Order: sequence, then C-alpha cells, then structure tokens
Amino acid sequence: MLGQVVELIEKKHKFAITSHMRPDGDGIGSGLALYWMLHSLGKEVEVVLRDRVPPAYLVLPGSEDVLVQPDINRAYDAVFLMECSDVERPGLPSLHHQLIVNIDHHSTTEPFGHINWIDPTAGAVGEMIYNLCKALGSEVTKEIAECIYTALLTDTGSFHFSNTTERSLKIASELVRRGVEPARISQALFYSYPFSKIKLLGMVLSTIERDESGKIAWVKVDRETMYEADASEEDSDGIVNHALSIDEVMAVAFFKELSPKVYRISLRSKGKNNVAKVAEVFGGGGHRNAAGCRIEGDFEEVRQRVIEGLQAAVGVAPIAV
Amino acid sequence: MLGQVVELIEKKHKFAITSHMRPDGDGIGSGLALYWMLHSLGKEVEVVLRDRVPPAYLVLPGSEDVLVQPDINRAYDAVFLMECSDVERPGLPSLHHQLIVNIDHHSTTEPFGHINWIDPTAGAVGEMIYNLCKALGSEVTKEIAECIYTALLTDTGSFHFSNTTERSLKIASELVRRGVEPARISQALFYSYPFSKIKLLGMVLSTIERDESGKIAWVKVDRETMYEADASEEDSDGIVNHALSIDEVMAVAFFKELSPKVYRISLRSKGKNNVAKVAEVFGGGGHRNAAGCRIEGDFEEVRQRVIEGLQAAVGVAPIAV
Repeated sequence: MLGQVVELIEKKHKFAITSHMRPDGDGIGSGLALYWMLHSLGKEVEVVLRDRVPPAYLVLPGSEDVLVQPDINRAYDAVFLMECSDVERPGLPSLHHQLIVNIDHHSTTEPFGHINWIDPTAGAVGEMIYNLCKALGSEVTKEIAECIYTALLTDTGSFHFSNTTERSLKIASELVRRGVEPARISQALFYSYPFSKIKLLGMVLSTIERDESGKIAWVKVDRETMYEADASEEDSDGIVNHALSIDEVMAVAFFKELSPKVYRISLRSKGKNNVAKVAEVFGGGGHRNAAGCRIEGDFEEVRQRVIEGLQAAVGVAPIAV
Repeated sequence: MLGQVVELIEKKHKFAITSHMRPDGDGIGSGLALYWMLHSLGKEVEVVLRDRVPPAYLVLPGSEDVLVQPDINRAYDAVFLMECSDVERPGLPSLHHQLIVNIDHHSTTEPFGHINWIDPTAGAVGEMIYNLCKALGSEVTKEIAECIYTALLTDTGSFHFSNTTERSLKIASELVRRGVEPARISQALFYSYPFSKIKLLGMVLSTIERDESGKIAWVKVDRETMYEADASEEDSDGIVNHALSIDEVMAVAFFKELSPKVYRISLRSKGKNNVAKVAEVFGGGGHRNAAGCRIEGDFEEVRQRVIEGLQAAVGVAPIAV
C-alpha cells in the first residue's frame, strides 16, 4: 500500500491534501508534513480544509497556506485524505470526482479510496508520513519534523495513550534531532488558552456530581455561565476529559445547554464501556469511548435519562441519584 | 563525578536512598530505580522518606518497600540524596552524620555532599540513573525502566517542558523496549484522581482573576472550600499550572489558606520571569519558574503585596487591580 503511494507521488504532479471537518492535530500535522514533503519534491500541492485551522495549530509552518473552502474546486491528479473514516468526512462534496488516496491509522476505516494505505500499528498518521518520507528518500526538514511531532504529540495524548510505542517515542526523538523544540510546540498547543477557557473550566468542573455507585459522573453548563465566563464554543472542548480522570469513574456526561430546553451531551468512557450505544438511543452516535447526542427537555429529566443510560452501559443498577 | 559514584557502589555494601519532603515523580522514580539497581548488584539498600509516597506513585514497583520515617536511624556506608538542593530537604535530621551522595540535575544545587554528581543537561535525575546503570554495566530491568520512565514523564511535564531533549525521548523509547507500558503508567499518574481533586480543581479555578495588564493571574482557596470539596492537601497540587496555561499570562499565584490569616502562596512563571525573587522577599524560595512562600495577614493585603511583586518581576507597572 505504501508502495502504491510512493509510485503515485513519483509519477504524478498536481496534488491536494485534506482531512476531516473540525480538524485535529494529526489531521493538520500529517497533512502539512505531506505538503512540505511534496513541495520539496517539486510538486504542485494545496491543502484544502472545510473548517479553519484552530488557533493553537497556527504554530505549524504552512498553516497560513491552508485554503479554507466549502468544496474542492479544481482538478488534481490525486487528493490525499488524512485520517478520514470515509469520503464524506472532509465535508467537500466534489471529492467524489477526484482520485482519492486514503491514508489512515484506524483499523476500522474501510478501503473507500482508489488507493488505500491503512496502518493500525502507527501511533498517528504523522508517523506514517515519517515512513513515507523515508521510503521516498526525502529529507526530514525542520518544517516536516515540526508537523509530524505535532501529529504524534496530540494523537498520543502527550504520549499518555496506548498508541504510544517504542517506535513513536524513537521517531519523536529523531524529530527533535531534526530541529523540533518540544517546549515551543507544547507551549503553543497546551499553554496558550484564552483566559475564558480556564474560567469556564473552573465553573463547569465545580458542578461535578456522581451517582451512588461512584462510577458515573457528570458536569453541566448553561448559557448564563457561558456568558459569565465570556466563553466561546471552543472553550468548552476537552472539559469532559477532566471528569474522566477520576479513578473510579467509568463514564461521564457533559450537558451543554444550546438554547432553552435543548442540550448537547458529550459522553466519554474508559475501557470497554460503550457510550456510543447510549448516544444512539437518543439519535446521536460516535465511538465506544467518545460519543454525543442532542436531547430536548427539562434539564432534570434529560439528565436522568442519560445517567440511567450510562448506568446500564457500565453495568451498575439504575439506582436513584 | 559519575566515576566517584560508580566506585563507591562497587566498593561499599550498605546504602540508603532518600529524596526531598513531599516527594515527586523524579525523586521517587529515580530513587526506586537506584534501589532496584543496587538490589540487582547484591547490595543491602533501603529507601527512606519522611513523607509518604503519594497514591499515584504506588504503581511503581518497590513503592511498598519505602520506609516512611521521621529520621535516619541506622548507619549506612552512604546515603544517596535524589534531587535535593541541600541536606535539609529530606527532612531527616540525622543525615548530618552520614556519608552523603548528592545526585541532582538542577544547576543551582550546591556541592553539599561528600560526593556530588550534578548534571544540568539531564532532563530528570531518572535520566542520570539510566546513565549510571549503563556505567555500571547493570541490566535495565522492567522494574528499573518503569521507575525511570515515571521520573522522566513527570519531570518533563509529559515531554512538554524545555528539559525534553532528543536524548530524553530516546531513553523513553528504550525504556518501552525494556517493558514499560506507557498507557498503564500514565493512567496511574494522570487519570486516577480522587473525585475531590476534580471538584476542588473546579472550585479553585472558578476564582481566577487577572490584573489590568492581563499578564498576572491568581486563584485562591480557603479552608471552607477545602472542607466543602472534602479535599486533602495533595488534592491542591498542580492546580496552579492550569492558571499558567493562559496565553498572555506570564506569572501566576495560588493563595492557599492554611489557617485564619496564614497563607501559603505558590508562584509559577513562564520563560525568564523570575518568581523565586518574589518568594525570597517574603522569606520563601524556589526556582526561577516555580517558587513559594508563606505570608500572614488579611487576604486582600497579602494578595496585593504578592501581585505587586509579580508585576515587578514580569515588568508591568504596579497598577491598581
């Protein structure tokens, strides 16, 4: 599969690179790493995303060259889809008319592309681009190194998750040798929050409650609190994970009021506890450990239905809370 | 310096290992790594700490063997002091009568021991123990690897801080090859908090305020809030770092009420802004980016004095807040 990608790059000239909507560190980092690599090989290349690059990732070289567009509007020899589970994920309708190269490290991704390179042993798609660089005999420049490092750092949760391997740490070391300053990248990614985000984090976490079993916890935020913290929608991203860092807690819910009596609920779980099934009951979806849904109703009633769902998923009796 | 340590270990037999009061991941991790190494060489060795091992570090092999004592009460051929700025830091009065081996990676540490091995190029003392292992020709067992990995992971802030180098990441990779499961260690260290810690984090962060410059921020906690969150003293560790993750903020203070009108103040800063100097004004101390002091007085008066100190350290005019 890697061989087909190498052959395509060697033979063709005009490429586009994209990733999923609401792009993350691996999508942007691996995409920009490939961008710099193709550039260095003298290719014509554009990075096209439907959603803007989140501010934290503007530290990456090439982030200012990203085209933010509602669709692909040119013909390319091929379009690379980084970390996408299907051809719809980038949110670019005309992708259907292009030659698709599907590059992913999720074993669940179907071979939906014309060329498919899926490597579940890689900690991040960024790691695969490192391998591609080696296979092409292309130099790992400082720009490429910074982009791959960001992909690795974010997708392994700062080397905390189970996709952290001997190999991913060795590559990270090699990238530092190529010029990455780890503290500079981490500073931009994890220590450059707006004041409002930390204020909101405090206000939301101080609402934390748990059920009698201690295995289910939840936090909430209403519009008034968002206003009081002067918070943007992005400011609430990631808060739910703090609730999951409690030892005995197996599943958590974050109730966010979108408008009166309308709630978006983010669900997270540890291990084999499946929250996607809970979200599906309410017309939502997601993965086993991260899912979401939207429910209308009085808060207390909405809360109770969701917590009962989580209790069933975790296997504790639906006791009064 | 390393040579002297190697010679001592080869010639002598009966050792103790200690670290500073309120021991952290590097103190405990490097200490236990040395413990396992000396064990494997057939030496008699004890780890003695004045304060207990925090629950998160009970994941480390050997943590159950640590002797928690108010003093050293035996004669040893030598006592290793891990990551201590002086002989008082372990809080063990009789240390004065022992042969002291001072092992540290802080350039500010004085050569207070009979043997001094100080290596400011090391990301953590754990990294130095890795080098010692190699110098002694000792095998890096899984136990040693887990202890060194913990030291590296905690002292580099999950590889976020400027002490993260090509070498520290390469060693981390090597330690995974020796049997470390990164996700298991990280789960124990960062995702096994008590409920009270997350509740307290929320309650403290929701008090966040900043000065007019936006460069100084502070949070506070009183005894009533500690009680309401059912929080232990350890639960407040690390909260101050969240305040420092704000983009424009250069220095932060965490005011913790110890008893009526008595406050312990933790100071943190970014880059070249020196908070140790601020702490020293109030009889405290520490490093450039992490220091602390204790002040008595009414909260509002204490707050104002500290914030004015931080404003001077960061170089903003001491404006009204």
